[in-house]
Order: sequence, then C-alpha cells, then structure tokens
Amino acid sequence: MTDSVGTLLSHINTPADLKRLELDQLPQLCAELRQFIIDELSANPGHFGASLGVVELTVALHYVYNTPEDSIVWDVGHQAYAHKILTGRRNKFATNRKLHGICGFPNPKESEYDAFIAGHASNSISAALGISVGQTLDKSAKRAVAVIGDGAMTGGLAFEGLNNASSCRNNLTIILNDNHMAIDHVVGGLSNYLVRINTSKRYNSFRSKVYKLFCKMGWLKEDESGKYTQRNNSLKAFLTNQHTLFEGLSVRYFGPVDGHDVVNLVKILRDVKDYNGPKIIHIRTKKGKGFKPAEECATEWHAPGKFDKNTGKRIVPEIKSDQPPLFQDVFGHTLLELARENEQIVGVTPAMATGCSMTYMMNEMPERTFDVGIAEGHAVTFSAGLAKEGKLPFCNIYSSFMQRAYDNVIHDVALQKLDMVICLDRAGLVGADGATHHGVFDIACFRTVPNLTLASPLNEIELRNLMFTAAQPNMGPFIIRYPRGRGFVADWHQPMRPMPVGKGYCLHDAGACAKVAVLSFGPRGNVARLALEQLDADAQNNIGLYNMVFAKPLDSELVLDVAKRYKRIVTIEEGSLAGGFGSAVLECLADAGLSVPVRRVGIPDFFVEHGSQDELYAILGMDANGLRKTFVEELSKS
Amino acid sequence: MTDSVGTLLSHINTPADLKRLELDQLPQLCAELRQFIIDELSANPGHFGASLGVVELTVALHYVYNTPEDSIVWDVGHQAYAHKILTGRRNKFATNRKLHGICGFPNPKESEYDAFIAGHASNSISAALGISVGQTLDKSAKRAVAVIGDGAMTGGLAFEGLNNASSCRNNLTIILNDNHMAIDHVVGGLSNYLVRINTSKRYNSFRSKVYKLFCKMGWLKEDESGKYTQRNNSLKAFLTNQHTLFEGLSVRYFGPVDGHDVVNLVKILRDVKDYNGPKIIHIRTKKGKGFKPAEECATEWHAPGKFDKNTGKRIVPEIKSDQPPLFQDVFGHTLLELARENEQIVGVTPAMATGCSMTYMMNEMPERTFDVGIAEGHAVTFSAGLAKEGKLPFCNIYSSFMQRAYDNVIHDVALQKLDMVICLDRAGLVGADGATHHGVFDIACFRTVPNLTLASPLNEIELRNLMFTAAQPNMGPFIIRYPRGRGFVADWHQPMRPMPVGKGYCLHDAGACAKVAVLSFGPRGNVARLALEQLDADAQNNIGLYNMVFAKPLDSELVLDVAKRYKRIVTIEEGSLAGGFGSAVLECLADAGLSVPVRRVGIPDFFVEHGSQDELYAILGMDANGLRKTFVEELSKS
Repeated sequence: MTDSVGTLLSHINTPADLKRLELDQLPQLCAELRQFIIDELSANPGHFGASLGVVELTVALHYVYNTPEDSIVWDVGHQAYAHKILTGRRNKFATNRKLHGICGFPNPKESEYDAFIAGHASNSISAALGISVGQTLDKSAKRAVAVIGDGAMTGGLAFEGLNNASSCRNNLTIILNDNHMAIDHVVGGLSNYLVRINTSKRYNSFRSKVYKLFCKMGWLKEDESGKYTQRNNSLKAFLTNQHTLFEGLSVRYFGPVDGHDVVNLVKILRDVKDYNGPKIIHIRTKKGKGFKPAEECATEWHAPGKFDKNTGKRIVPEIKSDQPPLFQDVFGHTLLELARENEQIVGVTPAMATGCSMTYMMNEMPERTFDVGIAEGHAVTFSAGLAKEGKLPFCNIYSSFMQRAYDNVIHDVALQKLDMVICLDRAGLVGADGATHHGVFDIACFRTVPNLTLASPLNEIELRNLMFTAAQPNMGPFIIRYPRGRGFVADWHQPMRPMPVGKGYCLHDAGACAKVAVLSFGPRGNVARLALEQLDADAQNNIGLYNMVFAKPLDSELVLDVAKRYKRIVTIEEGSLAGGFGSAVLECLADAGLSVPVRRVGIPDFFVEHGSQDELYAILGMDANGLRKTFVEELSKS
Repeated sequence: MTDSVGTLLSHINTPADLKRLELDQLPQLCAELRQFIIDELSANPGHFGASLGVVELTVALHYVYNTPEDSIVWDVGHQAYAHKILTGRRNKFATNRKLHGICGFPNPKESEYDAFIAGHASNSISAALGISVGQTLDKSAKRAVAVIGDGAMTGGLAFEGLNNASSCRNNLTIILNDNHMAIDHVVGGLSNYLVRINTSKRYNSFRSKVYKLFCKMGWLKEDESGKYTQRNNSLKAFLTNQHTLFEGLSVRYFGPVDGHDVVNLVKILRDVKDYNGPKIIHIRTKKGKGFKPAEECATEWHAPGKFDKNTGKRIVPEIKSDQPPLFQDVFGHTLLELARENEQIVGVTPAMATGCSMTYMMNEMPERTFDVGIAEGHAVTFSAGLAKEGKLPFCNIYSSFMQRAYDNVIHDVALQKLDMVICLDRAGLVGADGATHHGVFDIACFRTVPNLTLASPLNEIELRNLMFTAAQPNMGPFIIRYPRGRGFVADWHQPMRPMPVGKGYCLHDAGACAKVAVLSFGPRGNVARLALEQLDADAQNNIGLYNMVFAKPLDSELVLDVAKRYKRIVTIEEGSLAGGFGSAVLECLADAGLSVPVRRVGIPDFFVEHGSQDELYAILGMDANGLRKTFVEELSKS
C-alpha cells in the first residue's frame, strides 16, 4: 500500500531508534513520516487531518521523553497515528481500524506505548494528572504528558482536570494542540480566547522597561518584587492582550509556540520537562499540515475516506440512485422540514453538526441551531433550559457520547418531564471506530429512567415518523435511537404520520398455530425479515415477526398476546443484552406471571472491537445468516 | 414551630408584596427572614449555612427581577430556602423535606417560581443559558439569572455552560455566590483564583491615569481606543492583581461585591439587568451569616440537624452504645485500616470527604487522599490515571452523583479493566433529600457494562469484607454499593476476610420441599430475614432466603439451583426494577431455558419523592411488613 518508506523512518521501530538521530535530522524524519501517513491513508481511510497536524509534536515528544516509562496521553486519540507508527506499529499500519488490525485510537491493550485509552475527548488531563500524581507519590523520575486539542478543551472534564491540577503534587505537562478545529470548528469563549493569544514577542521586549517605569512612578514597590511573577503574568496579559486564563488556574503557561518547528519543540520540551508543578505548553498547529487540500478544508479532510494522494482528489464511492440514504441524512432533512413547520423547534449538537447532518438546518436557520462544542452534558442541560422556555429542542448526540450526559438526562430532563427530543445517532455497532464508539448501553441505561420514551425506527420512513411523533405537544422527553450508515428504503421521502406511542405491530403474520414469535427493536428487524424470507414456506408459516418500535414504554399488550399465541419468543436488539430490550420483555412476562421460553439476540457482555459493521454483525450472529440459524434452532425446539 | 414572624415578613406572600417595600426597608426584611430561617431550622433540620448566606441576595433578586416571568435558577438548590419563603411557601416551610411536604430543593412541580430543578450541582449556567437563549429567540423582555456557588463552579458542566455563553445571543446574568465553601471546602485552581480577586477600588482610581500615561509613552495609540475595553480588562488584571478568567471567556465580569449589603446589591442588579450579553456578578458572602456558630464552622453547620437557636448548641441525638454504626463510618475506618496495610491504596472523593467519612484517612494520610472538588467525572478518570500508575484508588461517590461519571466508568475504567474500587455511597433511597438524590439507577446502568464487578453488602461486616476483597490484586474495576445511614450489626469491627467473587449464599435454609426462594441483593436482605422471622414455622419452612452479594457477575449456579428446588422466586433490591438485579435473575433463568415464576421487589418506574427512609420503604412495600405480605402472597400461590 505504501510506495516506499523513507530512509530514516525505515529504521525506526521504537522510540529508542528515534533517539539515535541527530536533532537536525528530525525535520527530514517528519517529512518522511508525513508522507507515510499520506500514502497509507490515501488507500486505507482513517483520521487524516489531525494526524498530519501533530507529526512534529509526536517526533519531539518521543525524542525528548522516555516512553513508555514516561506516559503520553493523547486526546482525542485520532491524533495518534504518527505515535503508533513510531512505536512499533509501522508495519501493521495497513491494518488500522480493520477487523483484528490495530485500533484507530490509542489502546493500552495493543501497546505499552499507549498510556491510556482515548476514544472520547477531554479525558487526557484527568488521566495524565492521575498518572503524574502516582509518579510523584512514588518519588519517581517518570513524567506524564497530556496532549489535548483545543476542541477537546471545551469539554467540562478537561476543565475539571485543569482546575484540580494545582491542588496536588505533580509534574504534569499539558500540551494544548491548538489547531482551532474540532471535527467541524471549535466554538465558545475558550476558542476565541485562544485565538486572541498573540505571540509574546512584543511582551518580551517591553516587560522590563514597563516594570522599571512602574517602580519609578511608585505604582509598584521594589519590595513587592515577590509578587513579580504573578504581576508578570498580568503584565503580559496587558501588553500582549493575553488573558492568562490558565495561569488564573495556577497552571504555568508557555506559548504560543509554532507546532511545526520540530527543532524548537524539542528545545522547549527539554526546557520544560523537569520543571516542577503543572504546566501547559500552547502550540499552534495546522490540521492537515503538509497536504494542501487538507490544509484548505479541514472539516472535509478530518476523515476523508480514500483519496488520490497526487491530485488530492477524494475518491467518493459511487452511489447508486436507488440506494437507501444514510439515517443521518434523513435525520437532517426531516429536522429541517419539521423546523420549517414549527418555529419552536431548535437544534442542538455537541460539535457533531456535520456528522449528524444538522448542517441542513444550520445553514437555513443559523439562529435556531446551536453547536455547543464538545460538551455533551451542557448540550442536554442547555436543551432542557430551552425546553423550559417553550422551545422544542432536537438534541442530537451519538449514543456512546451520550453516556457523558446520563445524569443530565435523568436530573435535568426526565425529572422535569420536559418536552424535548433526544436523537441518539450511531446507536449500535459503528464499525471501524471500535469499542469506544459502539453505542450499545443506551437501551439499558435509559430504559431504567422514569418519564422517558425510548424508540427506535425500523427504517428511514419510521425515523421520520418518530421524529414527527416526538414533535407533537406534551410528549415529554422522547429518545430516538438509530444506527450509523445507510438504511433500508430508497424511497424514504414520504409524508410523515404520527405513530402511537408504546405500540408495536406485526411485520410478518404467521399461521394460526405458529411456534416462534420474533420481537425486534430497531432496524435489525429488516434483517430479521430478510432472514425469514430465506426460510422455506413451512418455517415462514411458523414464525411471526413483530416490530416493537418502543423499548419504553414497552407494548406489553402485544407481548402478552404473543406470549399466549406462540410457544417461544426470540428478541432482537442492537444493544447490550444485560438489562436491554430483551430484558424488558422478560420483565413484562414475569410481571404477568407468564412462562414462555425467551431467547435474546443482542450484544453479549464484552466490549466489541473494531471491524466493519457487517463483519461484526456476522461475528455476533446478528446478520441474516445468524438470525436464520437462530430461527431454525428455536423452531426445532418448539 | 416559629416563635413569630417579623412584621414585614408576615405580609410577604409573593414577590409582588416584596416589591411594595421601600429600598431602605430591605435590611429589616433580611433580618426578619434570617431569624425565620434560624427559628425554623432549629426545630426542623435542613440546609442551614448556605441558606443564611444568600438572604440578602434572594431579597435583592426578587426585588429587582420580575419573577416568575424572569427565571432564577439556583445552584445548588439548598441555597433556596429564603427564595421558597418569599414565594408563597412560608406557611408550609415547617413541612420542608418531610413526606408530602415541600421539597428541600427548588422543584418546578412545586412552584412556578422554581425555574429549574436543582438537586445536583453545576447545572445552573447551562439551564439558565438555555432559558435566556429561548427568551432572546422570542424577543422577550424576560430575563434569566443563574445563582451558582463557588463550589458548584468547579463542576465541568458549569465551565461548559460558561464557555458556550458567549457563542449565542443571550442576556444571561450569572451570580457567582462566592463563600469559599462547598460542603467541606472548595479545592482547585479556580478557588484560589477567586480568593485572589481583590476589591477593584485601587483599579478604579488608577486606570485613567495609567491609560493616559501609556498613550503618552506611545505604547498605546489613541486610535487603538476601540480595543480599550479589552485592554481595560487586562489593565485591571495588572493593577488589581486580577486574572480576568471570566473575561477571557468573553463573559463580562462585575465584582467582587459584598453579598450582604442588600441595598447595594439592588442597585447593582438594577444596573446590570438590562445590559445585553452574558455577564457574571461575583458576590462574596459568608455561609451561616448572622448566626455566629455557623459563621465560625461552616462545614459543621452545612446541615446541622436540630439546634438550640439561643445557645447555638447542636442537639445531637443520643446514640446507644449498642447501636449499629453508619455504613459511612465503617467505610471510613475500614479504608484507613486497608490503607495502613497497603501503601498503594489512595482515596479520591469529589467534595464529599465528610459525607462519606474519607476524613479519617485524610487526616492520617493527607498526601494519599484527594478531594478533587465537585467534579465526579474527573474523580473517576483521575482515579483511573492513578490506577494506571499502579496505585489502588478507592473512589467514593454518592450513587446519584455517579450518574455524572457514567462514561468515565465505561470508557476510562471498564474498557481498560483497571484495578480500582468504586464505592457508591447513598445507594438506594436517601430520605429527605428526595428524588434528585435517591441512588436507584446504578444497578441497571452499571450491570450492563462489561468488565465491572458490582456488589452490595448485607451489613457492615460484609462491607468490610467486600472492601478487603476488592483490594486484592487483579480484581479489575470493583463497585460496592451501600446505603445511607445505620446498618444492622453493632459489633461490626471484625477481622476482614475475602469473599468469593460472584458467589451468593444461603441466609435461611428452608425445608426439603420448600416453595418460595427469596434472592436478595444488598442490605434489604436483613429486612427480608426479619420479615421471615415474623412468619409462622410452617411459612419459615417453606421460604428460603439467599443473599446474592453480587449483581454482576450474578451467581448463576445458585440461581439455577434455586430455580430447580423451589416453585417460585422473589427478588429484592433497593434499585430501579427496570433492568436491575431482578432482571439479571430473569435473564439467567431465560438463558438456561428455565421457567419459574419470579416476583420482583424494588423501585417502580417513577421518581420517588422525599420522606424519611422508613416512610418510603413502607410506601414501596420494602419494609418488613411489605415484604412479609409479599412472602405470604407468593406462598399462597405455590
């Protein structure tokens, strides 16, 4: 896949090899590393822009620090490709994000150089602070470094870590990788603040002059020189227009520094490495650095898919006109349709406007859509505030990231029974992003919360109908979960109609003396139908298929009716089996005192690794083959 | 209960009544209000210190703002007693925190003046920002105010809200109520920062002089006057030693202001009210203001219980020497014992050192205990970092607050299978704090996460044994949930012994042809045993009682054995029935193809309100009476 590995890079299999290079060889290594990433990712898609941006930083870090004894915690992990390539995984890099291949994010299970897991943003400061405090307790010379993007800095967890950094003994180094980009763009006061921080050149040339003048004028006493450092920061703030936000939190600030000057980065890291106490080095980088098309359009090149590395043209897979759309697109278009009809509707996303397709509404109604940055908890509570004031928020959050707003949903939304719609995108198995990104816990964790409605559509048309239903008055908090990727219906743009809350329906009616009832929650029902169609007529006459639509409230009437008519039940869900939809069916039967054998299909009690969605479905017996086999087995038992 | 209501206060039933007073009458009203709170709380315990601290602020807010059209969002809600008294609840105040009485926190269900729910800290800025943005979209003249303590400001959610405030059109006013106290004391860089902010007097007298001088020296050009405001903030920072952290986030800052000068507060609020854009008013108050003992020891007087309002002596209920200890005390003493034996053990708490009794270890080993402030997510991820570096953290978080660290447990702990102990204090019904504080979702939401162990002790001795077990090598993430309050064994201080993970045991063996098996998870097993002892010998011979100890991994061997030997099963847990321990039993039976009727006892699908723990157990059929009734019913069916 890779044309050729550069002459320096080809000899680097561990950071020890890197350390043998001379300082002035590092720029060449960076160029080779960058080319390697471009070569690889042109053929094997992955997170492109962020990885190119930190090539110099990665080389400098491994050159200066003594990994893996020293810990480098990446935040978020898709910055870490250069790190993986330098730490023994160059030859495996073509397997990146593939089934049984290396993981797209740092993963301690994969390498001792991956100090901490890094699939969800904003955890690096807290984790690295813990590591650093542990090192300090052990009186160890080891060091911990957190590398955090400015996008990840907007997450509250990063602030909690920063706020705590000055409270305990540690030698943490935080590297703020400021490329003024999350996946889309960074929003919020912090982002504007970072932009305003100017180079400190002007400050350096003036500070002693000003200090002396102030003493002369009697405004600063010589005997106050003990306070000089602190005032120094304020002075710097005044002269360079910098607000020393970090120093306000008692974290020493260095920067801003050019993040693409590897020689200078090495010098600064060496200077700062053994400085005691928490410190932050603010570096400025460019996402996609060194690959012009990516530099020019960072959002598009965040994870561009395959591309021609010579022309910079992205290779967009051909889409047949009759192909079903992405669930994401259907969400985006439908939200806009609904918002045109109901002016109370607003859209809220935590930095995922493009990923969830809220961009359609954002473009047409910028004042009614809110990208709040990587801040899932705030996205939910802010939506709750909007709902309290009579707005109807559609708050769209990826299922696995919604785990961060669990309390906000309980405390700020469900307890007040607010009318708002929570769309859980990427619910179920997401594929290549792997274990950190699969959205498999939402059914169990939200089903247990009172006042919530929890629905999942069979297909795109039902997604539209559920969104339409959720937007009706007095529906309370209404959660709709749907998966990543294409749905099942090409002709999806049908007029919307309301669906009865808490009601399922029959997809395939079996004969009068049918044996097995399949109760399905969500789009896997299509696959179940397909599996059923592959069976012979006799089997089809003995298996009924029901689309339950709601995990909460469960259609207990339908479940009990089915329990009386069929001998066995199979439940299907794309979520964790422990406490999930299948358990809701078991609870319903037990509460009614009915005893019917139930076989539950879903995600077992382990973290599912990365691979294509289809590969993972097959492994878990959730593809048509697997379901057909399950149906036949159950039929044979009844 | 109240001796007499002051002459002004007695006429105030709504904020409209308050507005009829002259400005110079407000100090007297504050004095009366303060006395009313002291009178009431001396007899009817509640959150004392925080409420006394904001008497003047509350009066000023309702005097200036037009509630309930304008929204005041309290954070956290135990500041809101004066607010409740001024908004029609003075006569009901004696029912505060009692069954069917008014709620100890703002609650929109209770009053239209309670703009948002406020049981968990740090949500006010996000919620009030949502309300303010909604008002702005409606081009309404209504206003939103968030009142947030400096303790709550350490929560990441508050930062997320603050960071987002400058990104959207709004007129939000944030009042930072700085009393330098959470429940214990506030920690972290932000707290130190707030202390360093000095009065701006010096700044005011110097700024124009300095500005002119700088222009004269040619360092600031006259044509740069457009940048004056921004520089002005930096200048203020330099001259007054203030770091304008908030202004760094583009939120206009006013302060610090004396929070006990009601007349001045009114003037400032009037000035600032119609100032466009987000702004923060930093007020300084004293927790317990006006009641000397509370001013002197704020932690003790956070929620002091009954006291003599004349002498200031707290009325501590007499404790019989043979009374069982608090689970909290057992945790605290046991942690210290374990930490003395194993120097890798560290303790982490998010601002609840006193509440969870980590204070014992903190006093003896200050360098090995970490109060990280109100920051549950950070507490977990920081602990995970410590674990990564070889420490064995005991991270203690109240069950309902742990909802805020759900993703941290999944992503930062479970995925990496780190060896650490998570103690969920206040698991189950907590009593007077009510719906926001009951810890009822943890079984369902954590049971669904791979790699976790989830245990609950029967009593104090078992809590010790579980802590001892969890501290053994290579146990992975080990969660122990236990309730608020006293346990069941006075003679609790026994030598610790390990318990087999995933194993339950028999508490009461029934006869050979027994009919009903009771499977209990957690301390309710004691009540089940009591209920059983109240039954006649025949019933006792027909009912077996098992303490399951682990909800994950469930002792499936024991469950299946029981299912074969008994005709019916009853499960008992102090947690949400949907997806909880009982569902784990149902799953186990279904997976094994066994059909046994199961009746589940636990928390139904609604939010349980406040009341004493015993009252709530009785209502939910979880006291001895209720369980006895359930046993008899099940016996009669079998």
